Amino acid sequence: MRLRNKPWAKELIEAHSEYILVQPKDSQGQWQARFAKPQPLYVEVGSGKGQFIVEMAKALPQYNFIAMDVQKAAIAMILKKQVEEKLPNLQLLLANGASLTEYFAEDEVAHIYLNFSDPWPKTRHEKRRLTYRNFLKQYQTIMKPKGMLEFKTDNLGLFQYSLVSLSQYGMTLDFVALDLHHDDRVTFNIETEYEAKFAKKGQPIYQLKATFN
Amino acid sequence: MRLRNKPWAKELIEAHSEYILVQPKDSQGQWQARFAKPQPLYVEVGSGKGQFIVEMAKALPQYNFIAMDVQKAAIAMILKKQVEEKLPNLQLLLANGASLTEYFAEDEVAHIYLNFSDPWPKTRHEKRRLTYRNFLKQYQTIMKPKGMLEFKTDNLGLFQYSLVSLSQYGMTLDFVALDLHHDDRVTFNIETEYEAKFAKKGQPIYQLKATFN
Repeated sequence: MRLRNKPWAKELIEAHSEYILVQPKDSQGQWQARFAKPQPLYVEVGSGKGQFIVEMAKALPQYNFIAMDVQKAAIAMILKKQVEEKLPNLQLLLANGASLTEYFAEDEVAHIYLNFSDPWPKTRHEKRRLTYRNFLKQYQTIMKPKGMLEFKTDNLGLFQYSLVSLSQYGMTLDFVALDLHHDDRVTFNIETEYEAKFAKKGQPIYQLKATFN
Repeated sequence: MRLRNKPWAKELIEAHSEYILVQPKDSQGQWQARFAKPQPLYVEVGSGKGQFIVEMAKALPQYNFIAMDVQKAAIAMILKKQVEEKLPNLQLLLANGASLTEYFAEDEVAHIYLNFSDPWPKTRHEKRRLTYRNFLKQYQTIMKPKGMLEFKTDNLGLFQYSLVSLSQYGMTLDFVALDLHHDDRVTFNIETEYEAKFAKKGQPIYQLKATFN
């Protein structure tokens, strides 16, 4: 979702080059050097206010995380959290999901998260959906072989579309949940801000995990 | 579901060899000869009381249909309908879905339907689910290349399972509906007896269509 502009965002970002680069393309292929130690790289495309990625970085210190968003206001809110938390395994990236291959080298990423991405319900906007084949191609390029994509949404139409889009791209489904919050198989689930609010209304959250072949 | 025994079933079946063979394995590779004219063969595995397959045969005269069920009582009920309808493109088969390759030759079938199959929810019964890989292997054997499987269920657990099972077998999803009865894309849907009753309660019906590679 579109966040309100934060007048303090620019200054905060410029003051914290330890967590976010003003010229992030310079890190292409060099991301590991920005973390306390080299570990498998997990990237969230579209981090919003950042609750998910910050909690994940805390819960799974054995991975390095990158919070990515195209909105400066979103990245600024995550940065504010990170300035307090000082997590050694979290970096931020202000960039567009459509340009992933400019920010990451081939095989640099182990795992990608998409959480509650914009559903773009109109057929003419299909190409903007983050599970459209052009995006899948970018994910595949920057991920290691057998790299995994994890996707959560409350949007039935986008979930249907994504199952078919991933399958037709040649990806293999490893896990599907049609009601994530009432699923006996699920023992670990970090919620996004939106997910927590939405699930309280009792409506289902969908999840899939799929790998590139 | 298990149907009550029909004392008249045996006699009815024996009296109508034009619609059902007592020795159906004799038809392996020869099914087209049992229809008015040769047309692509569509098989429903587990036809129950037969509303779906009888209505399909009426609605789509350009295909030949086979209603298959392991229960004599089910086949007898479908036969009763067919004795009235006399559809030239419908044959019946009393047989077990686990023995498909004994009843059909390689490449003999164009399309397979699974409707509201038994969910077998316990993990130790996974092998009995009609979307378990051993069944998929049989479907693939008797179907032409790019043959399509269409599957409907109201069971969330079985649907989740089937999406992953088909994908891991190497099938490609062509269509997924998570609420078939409220889906703008769907213009043609013949209901089973069970589906009509269940959908009235407002609960979702799931559907997928997938092809073998």
